[in-house]
Amino acid sequence: MSNQTKFILSEQDIPEKWYNITADMPNKPLPPLHPATHEPIGPDALAPLFPMGLIEQEVTSDAWVEIPEEVRDIYKVWRPTPLYRAHRLEKALDTPAKIYYKYEGVSPAGSHKPNTAVPQAYYNMKEGVTRITTETGAGQWGSALAFACNLFGIHCEVYMVRISYDQKPYRKLMMNTWGADVYPSPSDRTHAGRQILAQDAASPGSLGIAISEAVEIAATHDDTKYSLGSVLNHVLLHQTVIGQEALKQMEMAGDFPDIIIAPFGGGSNFAGISFPFLRHKLVEGKKLRAIAVEPTSCPKLTRGVFRYDFGDTVGMTPLLPMYTLGHTFIPAKIHAGGLRYHGAGVIVSQLLKDNIIEAVAVDQLETFEAGVLFAKTEGIIPAPEANYGIAQALREAQIAKEEGVAKTILFNLCGHGNFDMASYDAYFSGRLQKHEMTQQEIEAALALIDTPAIPA
Amino acid sequence: MSNQTKFILSEQDIPEKWYNITADMPNKPLPPLHPATHEPIGPDALAPLFPMGLIEQEVTSDAWVEIPEEVRDIYKVWRPTPLYRAHRLEKALDTPAKIYYKYEGVSPAGSHKPNTAVPQAYYNMKEGVTRITTETGAGQWGSALAFACNLFGIHCEVYMVRISYDQKPYRKLMMNTWGADVYPSPSDRTHAGRQILAQDAASPGSLGIAISEAVEIAATHDDTKYSLGSVLNHVLLHQTVIGQEALKQMEMAGDFPDIIIAPFGGGSNFAGISFPFLRHKLVEGKKLRAIAVEPTSCPKLTRGVFRYDFGDTVGMTPLLPMYTLGHTFIPAKIHAGGLRYHGAGVIVSQLLKDNIIEAVAVDQLETFEAGVLFAKTEGIIPAPEANYGIAQALREAQIAKEEGVAKTILFNLCGHGNFDMASYDAYFSGRLQKHEMTQQEIEAALALIDTPAIPA
Repeated sequence: MSNQTKFILSEQDIPEKWYNITADMPNKPLPPLHPATHEPIGPDALAPLFPMGLIEQEVTSDAWVEIPEEVRDIYKVWRPTPLYRAHRLEKALDTPAKIYYKYEGVSPAGSHKPNTAVPQAYYNMKEGVTRITTETGAGQWGSALAFACNLFGIHCEVYMVRISYDQKPYRKLMMNTWGADVYPSPSDRTHAGRQILAQDAASPGSLGIAISEAVEIAATHDDTKYSLGSVLNHVLLHQTVIGQEALKQMEMAGDFPDIIIAPFGGGSNFAGISFPFLRHKLVEGKKLRAIAVEPTSCPKLTRGVFRYDFGDTVGMTPLLPMYTLGHTFIPAKIHAGGLRYHGAGVIVSQLLKDNIIEAVAVDQLETFEAGVLFAKTEGIIPAPEANYGIAQALREAQIAKEEGVAKTILFNLCGHGNFDMASYDAYFSGRLQKHEMTQQEIEAALALIDTPAIPA
Repeated sequence: MSNQTKFILSEQDIPEKWYNITADMPNKPLPPLHPATHEPIGPDALAPLFPMGLIEQEVTSDAWVEIPEEVRDIYKVWRPTPLYRAHRLEKALDTPAKIYYKYEGVSPAGSHKPNTAVPQAYYNMKEGVTRITTETGAGQWGSALAFACNLFGIHCEVYMVRISYDQKPYRKLMMNTWGADVYPSPSDRTHAGRQILAQDAASPGSLGIAISEAVEIAATHDDTKYSLGSVLNHVLLHQTVIGQEALKQMEMAGDFPDIIIAPFGGGSNFAGISFPFLRHKLVEGKKLRAIAVEPTSCPKLTRGVFRYDFGDTVGMTPLLPMYTLGHTFIPAKIHAGGLRYHGAGVIVSQLLKDNIIEAVAVDQLETFEAGVLFAKTEGIIPAPEANYGIAQALREAQIAKEEGVAKTILFNLCGHGNFDMASYDAYFSGRLQKHEMTQQEIEAALALIDTPAIPA
């Protein structure tokens, strides 16, 4: 057993249900509020943006939601994904810790994102939607949705954060290959985009702005819906296939994690790997630390506030109860474009508020150092986002070494870095800088927030 | 069964031996000749370039060669690779043919090349070699060797064909991440490179030139050996792990191929998938067509001559009996850099001469069309090299449709196109052209050959 490197499941092991953690949470998430009236809204308010199949999943209190056969059929293209024991990394660290990682980079789009892109496209197709708009930061999500839409014959329109659009032309081409149209955001195609460009014609964009643009198009066209790659409950739900498979694979390894680690942007990566394990903590009281890792340049979990805020920059979405740095916050241009979102998903925010999970912020220089060590020992070059999880795993392995305890660490390697080599180039050539926000910058960001507080 | 998409093996199914087809060939390959004397050479003549462990494999007549445990241990990072039934592609083609593909793009370097890079680095490490030089065309081979050398603590020095070096900066960065040094070829670091640059300072380079440079460095430094990513017997040997796994997976599918297809550069891709199946043809008389697919711009198998020729441009290697367009031939700058080699491996050449296998040439425009259809139906964006195999699979599926026969087709999807999106861009924007050589061009190339003929 100790010699085994890779734990492989068969097609029959692809989960048949998604796991909804809200069913087992001691405190349920608070309801979203209407952006204008600040009154709680029901499912119907989401109908202009999402098909009913997804809205039902967004609000369901069922613990398990069945995965349609057509979706499982496409999951077979890359699922089940492998789970690895990181023997060579452990050796390099000289740690007694046992390090495992689940590798989601084997999907066609190269990350965990297709796990939710496929069901989202599926439910839209079922309800006759012919076009889906979305935003993308690093490009992982846009690629995943382009891939999924193509398989169901839906036209896909992607608003790509300007800085990523310029830095990653190959991501754009990947989306084009699958038939999607890609626009740099802010664009002149929407009112929201034109508004931002009027203030700053050279705006590098942000995920919040791109969301505003994609939402606007969907809200103003009957044949078009919108799709989000993280944050929302149904997105986190779909990602739980990762953790369910990992549970089986850890069982194959005869092990159970003491610590689960994942990078944190909006929460889907973290939820995907951790929720099926957290179920055992919530239901059976099993001991388990789950750690979300965010950039020091966008520290909403560790330095933001827990209150109602918009999901987009302009303020078109419902108000969501979440950890946030403010919906107008635009983080520094670090090289992990995907973790530059101002807020955190509602479920994860509530779990953090209730101390069921932990959060930590890591600087990008430390993450690239960790990623290069990983590439040199385990062979896989990770996406810059994934390096955040690796960096924290290295910290925990170091603590285990100092304490002399053989802890079991599991992290989610959410994607490969094949489209991010320019970031590695920037790191190698010394062009990357530390990006820790000062207390003053944090206070200035939070002072701008004018949305409702959470009721006591 | 018919519903199954992916046939997955476990770590225990990684082959324990490589298969050497020369043991079962009716006519054995002719011996290599000394470049100056034209006399047959023995294994010792290769000692300046290769470690004895690999030379033994180059000349062995054993049918099976044991895979060292240390090599199998690293194979576990990505092997066994999946074998797919291309349900969605079949449907799009409306063909009665059953199409299967073995997917080698799941390796860290993204292609089948690490299958031989790892054992090559291993045997060099065992004999105390501290530096390995090599050439790379498309970059797949250089990446694979950089990956493998890093794991065994060997310094890797890559001569990268100039045109690829300029077109694919991210490939270079991938090699850098694994610790390799990469130089554009022709370079001023070698006598061979300086000689070419003196004739043409803007030379786009070729695989033959890059080989000359890498060989020169190895031949003139005691601590340095050379490594080749295709053509040679031991390279083809290592790749047979692909076909051995595929044999088991086709058995899981309850099927056996009527036709096996693979792209052809030097022969390792083709050998890897086909030799373990061809064994059943050679030993048991099983019916099977194996088709090597080359570019119309570099048609050594279909329009070249079978005679002795050098492996490199300058003429430093032994003379090998092979199909060739002449060692000074430099093919057009098509976008599948990896298939631009002037000659074919000795074993494959003999098999073709004896009509045991077939060869066909396809134009790059047809291959990209096939690759985009594949990406849209099966989800994976193939390497441009891999598109040659897909294009031929589509031709055969079309014939099956016309004949109304449910033929079983298996092809090797040797790598993903994540680093080749610029080629897709060129295709989408209409910048790629047909590159069929004229009869005059072929004759002009062959007229330059001054190496010995094959004895009758």
